[in-house]
This record gives sequence, C-alpha cells and structure tokens, in this order.
Amino acid sequence: MTGWITVAGLGPGAEALVTPEVTAALAEATDIVGYIPYVARVAPRPGLVLHPSDNRVELDRAQAALDMARAGRRVVIVSSGDPGVFAMASALFEALETRPDCHDLDIRILPGITAMLAAAARAGAPLGHDFCAINLSDNLKPFAEVERRLRHAAQGGFAMAFYNPRSRSRPHQFARVLEILREECEGARLILFARAVTTPEERIETVTLAEAMPEMADMRTVVIVGNSATRRVGRWVYTPRSVEGAV
Amino acid sequence: MTGWITVAGLGPGAEALVTPEVTAALAEATDIVGYIPYVARVAPRPGLVLHPSDNRVELDRAQAALDMARAGRRVVIVSSGDPGVFAMASALFEALETRPDCHDLDIRILPGITAMLAAAARAGAPLGHDFCAINLSDNLKPFAEVERRLRHAAQGGFAMAFYNPRSRSRPHQFARVLEILREECEGARLILFARAVTTPEERIETVTLAEAMPEMADMRTVVIVGNSATRRVGRWVYTPRSVEGAV
Repeated sequence: MTGWITVAGLGPGAEALVTPEVTAALAEATDIVGYIPYVARVAPRPGLVLHPSDNRVELDRAQAALDMARAGRRVVIVSSGDPGVFAMASALFEALETRPDCHDLDIRILPGITAMLAAAARAGAPLGHDFCAINLSDNLKPFAEVERRLRHAAQGGFAMAFYNPRSRSRPHQFARVLEILREECEGARLILFARAVTTPEERIETVTLAEAMPEMADMRTVVIVGNSATRRVGRWVYTPRSVEGAV
Repeated sequence: MTGWITVAGLGPGAEALVTPEVTAALAEATDIVGYIPYVARVAPRPGLVLHPSDNRVELDRAQAALDMARAGRRVVIVSSGDPGVFAMASALFEALETRPDCHDLDIRILPGITAMLAAAARAGAPLGHDFCAINLSDNLKPFAEVERRLRHAAQGGFAMAFYNPRSRSRPHQFARVLEILREECEGARLILFARAVTTPEERIETVTLAEAMPEMADMRTVVIVGNSATRRVGRWVYTPRSVEGAV
C-alpha cells in the first residue's frame, strides 16, 4: 500500500461548509490525526483509526503522521478552518524539514473555509477591501511583534482579522490590543466579535472600538476590525470596495 | 413566493471546492446573476434564468438582483472564490444602502474558497503566519494607496497575497509593485505566481523577488509574497509558524 498525507481544512464548524474534496479524502483515509475537537468531527467507521491529540503538540503530531504515511497508511491531518491559516500545514512542513527521508511522500493540502471568511459572511462583508490576518497568540512570536504589526495594519488602512485573540493563560493581552487599536483608530471604528461561527453556539456582536471590552473575546472567537470606511447598512456590516480619491 | 438573494462563492474553479451550502443554494435558485465566466460555471436547467453580465458593472448587477428578489425571485449572485474578498458581497451592500425598501429582504452571504488560500494550499503553506490581502487594481483606489499599503505590509513583516495584480489596461503598475517590494525586501524573498488555480490551466511558479518579472502575472494570477522566513522544503514553499525571539 502506498501511504500519503493530506492536511484537510474542515471549515469553521457546519458540515455544509466542508468541501467535497475534503469529504472524499476523509473517506479514503486509514488514519485521522489532529487536535481532539477536530478529530471528533470525523465520523468513526470500521478500518479508520482516530488519533486525537492535545493542543500545542503540532510538531509531534506531524512527525507521527509522517511515520504512518512512510509505513503505508493513508493519513488525514485535520484542521478547523483552512489548514494553511495558523493551522497544521506549516507545522507539517516544519516537521518535513527534519525528515529528508519523507520528501518524496505524497502530500496534499486541501483548503477549507477559514474562520474570518465565515465570520465576515455571517456579518456582511467587513473584509471587502484590503485586510490583514494576525494571530494574536504569543506562543510563537513575542508580543512586541504583535504590537508592531497592529500599528502597521492600522496605519496602512487595512481591515484586520484576529485569530486566537484571548486565552486563559494570557487574558491581559487582548486588553492591550484594544488599547493599541484605540491609539491608532477612531473610537467609532466598528469591531466584530464572532464566536463559534456556523455552530449552534454561534454569537456575533458588532460594537464600536470605544465600546469593545476584552471579555467579548475568547479562544473560540474571531475578531474583525473594520477600516475607517466600514459601516452598517440595516443589520449588516460591510466595508466599501473603494477608498476616497479613487478615480 | 418570497424572494431572496444569496451571494455565493464558487471557489477558485474546481467543482470539488464548491461547498454543499452553495450547491444547495444554486439548486433552489430561479435566477443566477454575475460576471459572464462565473455564471457559465452554473449548469443550466429548466426554470433557471441565467443573467450573465460584463465586468465592472457590479452595482448595476446588484440593483438588478435587488429588484428581482423584491419581485419574489430567488436570486443567487455568483462570485468566484469568496464573495467577501474583492467580490460581489460589498457591491450588494453598497447597492442596499441606496435601497431602504430592500432592507428587510432575506439576504445571505455564503463563503467560498478564496484564490489565495487555494493557491497557498497548492504551493504548501506560504500564508502560515500573519499576512495581508491586497487588491492591486486601481479601479477603486488611487495607486498611491496601494504603494502605502505595500510598504506597511512589508515593514510589518507580513506575507502578502495580491489579487488582480495586472491587466492589459495598466501593465506598468505591477512592474512598479515589484520595484517597491525590492526597496522594502531582500532579493532572496520568495514570490509565487499562481495562475488559474485548481483549473486545467493551473500554473504555479515560485521564484525569488530578484528573479520576478512583471510578465509572470496576469488577471487570472494570484501573487503571494512570503515573509523573510518563508522557505522551500522539497517541492514545497512554506512560512514557519514562529518568528525569531518567540518564547
């Protein structure tokens, strides 16, 4: 049997957002590898081995997947959202760098609906103009780098989407993010808190930056900050396609 | 009959990347509205009226969709990729601002696989760390604003994805974009040209910034510029999850 690894994006939660390409890969797999809640989204069946693992063991998980594929297993590493956005695809390639014996493996990355785009769709079109995606976690970069990027994004007139905005281990940092945004942006700037998008627990709240409070975000929340033109129309929030001065 | 409007993302091209949610909406529609090549992706069937229109008439198209839904039709506006990323969702809300009579309409935005994420997946994981998405077209913003954003994105250490990098009407501007990038980034920086991703015409090429030439891009190309840590492993290109200095 020829082994392979596919890194598949399961989308934000709803089954109707899983692409047929990902569904087909899951149907062909012998092994599913991933963070516990994502593996739990894959239906068990005879002949399919589930390998749920804890958070923050991405490299161990990637190494295990490489070992299994090398041994002839058909391995799907599942990510929520899109595997290339703050998820398992980069971790797999980091592991692959240390494994020249695996460079000839059959590896595929299957895109998924990433959380910021699902959240944007539910709210309207807040990312309809140039935007940035920033991982606020400081597990993998110093917070000073987060701050520097926030200021460039704000000064550049980008809308912003924040992943991993707040966790129990660093509750103070998102408060600091809001302070930085208030230094760079006007108080009327719109900010969306989109939690557990497309699941039964979905909650989407839009407030002004002046009204925003750190407690509005947790690790299941994607936060979207509009640009200076982002506005409400009816129950929707959107960012116009053009900026002033356009011809 | 109660009318509605759904703005649906068809993804980058492959049918296997169309979400079941979008497929279901297309099956319920009475009318399909959109740019000619996107409407051509919807299979004709009895009772379904196709309304293909030319590029650059987004607001007219949105107004026509509002009129039809108001009259009880079930209208799907199709976008390629994701409708919220430089596509029809914002145009619909711009039209809606002028139509208070339509604020109570049933409107849904259905996300899709946007081109930069499909391109990233085919190449590896070049957007695995913080990144920006920038529309290089100056139809809707002055080119000076593009330049300002490029410099902030580069100085902020973001990877970048460019939509609409080059067209026949402004062939010189992408050359200028490459000049700006060369002022801000080292010559060894990796840059990907991903054309017609997931279609039979797909072509993905990775070069260094020093080697990049304007002719490598056209309007069917998404361009991805890595950050300073983006590297090759085997046949793949990826951006590590961490930056130096991370704890």
